Amino acid sequence: MPLWNVYHPVGAYSEEEKRDFAARVASDYEAAGLPRFYVVTLFHEVDRGSFYVGGEPVDDVVRVAIDHIARHAEDPARRESVRNRISSVIQPFATEKGLRWEFHVDETPRDLWIINGLVPPPNGSDAEQLWARENRAIPY
Amino acid sequence: MPLWNVYHPVGAYSEEEKRDFAARVASDYEAAGLPRFYVVTLFHEVDRGSFYVGGEPVDDVVRVAIDHIARHAEDPARRESVRNRISSVIQPFATEKGLRWEFHVDETPRDLWIINGLVPPPNGSDAEQLWARENRAIPY
Amino acid sequence: MPLWNVYHPVGAYSEEEKRDFAARVASDYEAAGLPRFYVVTLFHEVDRGSFYVGGEPVDDVVRVAIDHIARHAEDPARRESVRNRISSVIQPFATEKGLRWEFHVDETPRDLWIINGLVPPPNGSDAEQLWARENRAIPY
Repeated sequence: MPLWNVYHPVGAYSEEEKRDFAARVASDYEAAGLPRFYVVTLFHEVDRGSFYVGGEPVDDVVRVAIDHIARHAEDPARRESVRNRISSVIQPFATEKGLRWEFHVDETPRDLWIINGLVPPPNGSDAEQLWARENRAIPY
Repeated sequence: MPLWNVYHPVGAYSEEEKRDFAARVASDYEAAGLPRFYVVTLFHEVDRGSFYVGGEPVDDVVRVAIDHIARHAEDPARRESVRNRISSVIQPFATEKGLRWEFHVDETPRDLWIINGLVPPPNGSDAEQLWARENRAIPY
Repeated sequence: MPLWNVYHPVGAYSEEEKRDFAARVASDYEAAGLPRFYVVTLFHEVDRGSFYVGGEPVDDVVRVAIDHIARHAEDPARRESVRNRISSVIQPFATEKGLRWEFHVDETPRDLWIINGLVPPPNGSDAEQLWARENRAIPY
């Protein structure tokens, strides 16, 4: 469900760092009860001449665009928690590397979402827990 | 209107397959009454080291992110039909090639959408039908 | 806040044109009162075999996908103004170069947005004006 598009400067991350970053993202959603395989993270290298902040070319910024599909935080406290968790995931791969960063989350309709031909099971259902345990989409 | 961003493994599709895939997408929306040129499909090759599902690098997954602008399905039955149609379009280019796949659709505001400086005509209007017949944006 | 993803044909823009385009985008939002550094513009070169309009490969189309986060236009008149401003920004880099073009805007939740670990200050607040003047994120 969550789709992370990570736009980053050329060479900002080694293969190992990308893997660590993606694993950290997946673990965060898994800790919140989602099947781990719901989490898709795509890294996009953007060269300085194609990456602008305030109209200036940059090579020190990570811009993360996130879609949340399975879960939409309802109340302000939970939304704050979502913000903070995502910040905690990004910081080691941005601030601690001397990179500036920004993210925003969109929340898209759960009922227009399909994995391998299957409608993902309802939040908190037995089927969802099975998907989480097996870490794959299973007809239910 | 619909914008399809197709993130796929390196070499997953030949030029011909991409063209077939894109034509299939366009035909599906055209069959639903939309001008064919509304349909934009972009293919993005993502290498294994930049494509993660559940924190693991993958080279056998197609991830499609779709924006619907011109039409938003209102009731659950139509939304199910949208899901099924999109699934039918993707399957020959995923399941049948041994690739896992996932898509989600976002629905974005129709009134913040412009083609070649023109506000696309209202759903079902004579002007929209003209655009569909001529397959291009025409002042109306 | 606004994130512009500009999908364009290979070689459509020189480095200088991309910079001019991005500066023009930033200036438009700055004129509307936003901190200039809120504006992120990413250029993505898409080759003819990966860029389809109506199922046909193209190399003369610019497709811009925009997310608005900080400001959501409320009434129809302001939304029309948003459409027109964005059109005016794109036209010199599309129509005037013989390229067809299309954009759409999504409006995403302001409260799921973070820059450098900070919640951007409320619209029109003193802190926002400070961010605008200093053109950077400052703890407030």
